[in-house]
Amino acid sequence: MTDTIEGALAQIKFGPDGLVAAVAQQFDSGEVLMVAWMDREAVRLTLAEGRVCYWSRSRRALWRKGEISGQIQRLREMRLDCDGDTVLLLVDQTGVACHTGRRSCFFRGWDSEGAGWTTIAEPEVPPEQLYPSEKNPN
Amino acid sequence: MTDTIEGALAQIKFGPDGLVAAVAQQFDSGEVLMVAWMDREAVRLTLAEGRVCYWSRSRRALWRKGEISGQIQRLREMRLDCDGDTVLLLVDQTGVACHTGRRSCFFRGWDSEGAGWTTIAEPEVPPEQLYPSEKNPN
Repeated sequence: MTDTIEGALAQIKFGPDGLVAAVAQQFDSGEVLMVAWMDREAVRLTLAEGRVCYWSRSRRALWRKGEISGQIQRLREMRLDCDGDTVLLLVDQTGVACHTGRRSCFFRGWDSEGAGWTTIAEPEVPPEQLYPSEKNPN
Repeated sequence: MTDTIEGALAQIKFGPDGLVAAVAQQFDSGEVLMVAWMDREAVRLTLAEGRVCYWSRSRRALWRKGEISGQIQRLREMRLDCDGDTVLLLVDQTGVACHTGRRSCFFRGWDSEGAGWTTIAEPEVPPEQLYPSEKNPN
């Protein structure tokens, strides 16, 4: 298993900052939940544990999605694109993916009729319930 | 319309390189087709024309998806994430999104049983048919 993971890592083209973009998609509904970043260790942990771990650029630390909020992502499948510089994570999202309490981080839609960005989804969980005492939600 | 687009642009957080990540998803099937990059002008043109335009990092030029191959993407909806640093493009993809002739660029799946990255989709169109005389496909 470990050898296989090291082999998988070798085919991912991490950027100059050591990161690769990761798109998380709910495996059954097809909903795009969020886009975040992974370093080598995050990919390694995600494949080994079957639970999604990212690299938080703001906190400069590994970020096991849901470690505080409980809104974890179980990995169903990992895919790699033709350039090898983006991964697609098919996940089973517990609860909500967005720190605002919304299911998806993409909750603003552009209204071509003139209203600009409009909110197209409301929070399903109050953010303060997800992060009772945290300044850096995840 | 132009004022609205300028307003939309103001809420997108372009990175230090002037780019924002863009995920293209087929609007009806939910298939994630590709991830690429957009600069301000690419977003502006995409919203104004209703046809997706990216910024090619390798060619350092605007890249109207399908300009050579004919495999264009019509924009159905643009969404913005909570951080404002990634856009989700709901598109209607003509033909195939990937320069390899496959529908999606994410045609490699990780096999946890030990086979590593395995090809999970075959080309639907021969690449040489998409780009008869090009070195830089799109």
